[in-house]
Amino acid sequence: MEAFSDGVFAIAITLLVLDLVAPSVTEGGVGRLLIDRWPTYLAYLVSFASIGAAWLSHSTITEYLDRADSVLLRLNLLLLLFVSVLPFPTRMLGEYLRETGAERIAVTVYGLNLLAISGLTSVLWHYAVSERLIKGDLADDDARAITSKLNPSLAFYAVTIAIGLLVPVAAVVLYFAIALYLLIPFRVIARQLRRRPAR
Amino acid sequence: MEAFSDGVFAIAITLLVLDLVAPSVTEGGVGRLLIDRWPTYLAYLVSFASIGAAWLSHSTITEYLDRADSVLLRLNLLLLLFVSVLPFPTRMLGEYLRETGAERIAVTVYGLNLLAISGLTSVLWHYAVSERLIKGDLADDDARAITSKLNPSLAFYAVTIAIGLLVPVAAVVLYFAIALYLLIPFRVIARQLRRRPAR
Amino acid sequence: MEAFSDGVFAIAITLLVLDLVAPSVTEGGVGRLLIDRWPTYLAYLVSFASIGAAWLSHSTITEYLDRADSVLLRLNLLLLLFVSVLPFPTRMLGEYLRETGAERIAVTVYGLNLLAISGLTSVLWHYAVSERLIKGDLADDDARAITSKLNPSLAFYAVTIAIGLLVPVAAVVLYFAIALYLLIPFRVIARQLRRRPAR
Amino acid sequence: MEAFSDGVFAIAITLLVLDLVAPSVTEGGVGRLLIDRWPTYLAYLVSFASIGAAWLSHSTITEYLDRADSVLLRLNLLLLLFVSVLPFPTRMLGEYLRETGAERIAVTVYGLNLLAISGLTSVLWHYAVSERLIKGDLADDDARAITSKLNPSLAFYAVTIAIGLLVPVAAVVLYFAIALYLLIPFRVIARQLRRRPAR
Repeated sequence: MEAFSDGVFAIAITLLVLDLVAPSVTEGGVGRLLIDRWPTYLAYLVSFASIGAAWLSHSTITEYLDRADSVLLRLNLLLLLFVSVLPFPTRMLGEYLRETGAERIAVTVYGLNLLAISGLTSVLWHYAVSERLIKGDLADDDARAITSKLNPSLAFYAVTIAIGLLVPVAAVVLYFAIALYLLIPFRVIARQLRRRPAR
Repeated sequence: MEAFSDGVFAIAITLLVLDLVAPSVTEGGVGRLLIDRWPTYLAYLVSFASIGAAWLSHSTITEYLDRADSVLLRLNLLLLLFVSVLPFPTRMLGEYLRETGAERIAVTVYGLNLLAISGLTSVLWHYAVSERLIKGDLADDDARAITSKLNPSLAFYAVTIAIGLLVPVAAVVLYFAIALYLLIPFRVIARQLRRRPAR
Repeated sequence: MEAFSDGVFAIAITLLVLDLVAPSVTEGGVGRLLIDRWPTYLAYLVSFASIGAAWLSHSTITEYLDRADSVLLRLNLLLLLFVSVLPFPTRMLGEYLRETGAERIAVTVYGLNLLAISGLTSVLWHYAVSERLIKGDLADDDARAITSKLNPSLAFYAVTIAIGLLVPVAAVVLYFAIALYLLIPFRVIARQLRRRPAR
Repeated sequence: MEAFSDGVFAIAITLLVLDLVAPSVTEGGVGRLLIDRWPTYLAYLVSFASIGAAWLSHSTITEYLDRADSVLLRLNLLLLLFVSVLPFPTRMLGEYLRETGAERIAVTVYGLNLLAISGLTSVLWHYAVSERLIKGDLADDDARAITSKLNPSLAFYAVTIAIGLLVPVAAVVLYFAIALYLLIPFRVIARQLRRRPAR
């Protein structure tokens, strides 16, 4: 299960680059065109960070798993469906972000996809805990970080989807902020900072 | 063999997203266009579920394998040929499903591909059993589920290919149903339901 | 080294499907178009079989490897260069096979690519043997099959490249035959056939 | 972490082939067209060698890693961002290298990407050493080669970016030279040459 899941995460995160199409030279100045296409690059960055954060949570869960049962394997497959489909809303976001009318649909579909990834990661984790499929105690920073971050991030996604209906671009920036919040190990950094002066 | 096979399954299932092309804005209202393209999304979903089900069967087989002989490695490569080519009939399905005349060919080629995946998984399993390449006993739920599900699903695929010649869209829905039948662990769920009230 | 190599082989073999473009319906009858595009399907099949055969040889070599030194890692990377670039000549083959003038170049470039894969696999194997990087004895069928098949296949490729300059299509069929020769475990089948009646 | 990273490296290096588009026959003589497109092939080769060299450094680092902490996992993800985005500047390089005005931007963006990969590999290595995440001593050739090659290559990239502003094509050739410098194990070859005559 781990090799297959890692493969899907790695491929989905790398396929994102295929939508970074180089503008053809005849269209005008390359420098200006590259700047004009900022929605594509923003969408790339947000999706990379989001899949990266989802992979981090997922790899911590699989690390703590003692064994996988039939239901967990299927829940995992459902999670991978939403991870591997993310390049599609990412492409829509890059194309529609500056088109009035279309950008609302694109940002909402994108947000629902991120919510599904986050929600299913949470379901996977709680199922593993409730069915006692995990090993040992959860003393590690990463494991505690999962439990303490998964639930709030679900709420963040729900709120941001609502914001996206009013100000689409603001939602994209917030999706990036949520991914960074999931990625940055505040707890560990704080502890290392406390430890440093004591040396 | 396992790493390479898992890789091919993971890549084939993730490449499917490349055919979910975002409609260009100038073509009309984005919302309506997304709805118009339902055959593409249906084809994506059916193929994801079918490859997912094939991967589940395959990973259960490799889990039970004690060793692989020369013939098994080649049978496995033949199975991977049909897994990795599936994105092509999927693309045809998404494009032709609403075109009279073309949709019959697309649905039939698609069904033959699924039949080949299912048939070769069955051959792989029976070869491994008959050549005593598997380890221990087959007491586990998943292993019994394979044996009890592989043969009927072959028959389902054959019948559905025939139905597809008459009502192409119905066949696509049935292919999705077969994949769900292969994916849902009825046996395990039933046992857990029986166990729950006893607590 | 093994995980990375297996990854490159798995991706190269699966990316081949991206060049199987479904003909657009407006071009004419789908059935006839699918038949018209036989060079694309032939090229797909030959490349799948060739990468499959190269992976089989490569995985047998890595299985026998005891350790890898710096030079072996670089030779392996050079082999992976030619494996991962094969989808490009495959695409050319599918497009040019029926164009007079262009098909000679396409078939020759394709043959040189296959020759490079075969030659570098041979170099990798002989380097590993001469530097004593392999473990134990070479008593296994697969290992003996490598030694006995690698050198003749190099000669086959060289001869077929020459044939391709005269009759391009014949060369493509021969490349498929060489891949099958590399894939089919004659030795093992013969022994099993001898063993069967004795039971 | 290793399986996911190896996956991203393997996919990024193999996706490069998708930009080697076969010229359509109607455009003119195929042979001449293939020669005309040399910037695409040069860009492919430089990127393959650069990702290959980055993978070699990365796999040596992970080999020496005893364990990974939270910060290291995030640094690694940042490195993978620049590895997986490289196919985009590669595409730009292949398209713009002969266009006056555009080629300067393409070569500079490409160089900055290579500098980021090299710099983050260096940061990853020094972080692992300073936080004592590596195991044992660094007696091995590969480990010493990393330490002795990472810092100079950073300087080489910085200088070549400056050269690229004046003579873009020269910079591309120099990027290839840097990748070869990172790939060729001079130290090991020299020792083997010294050892040979003594036999």
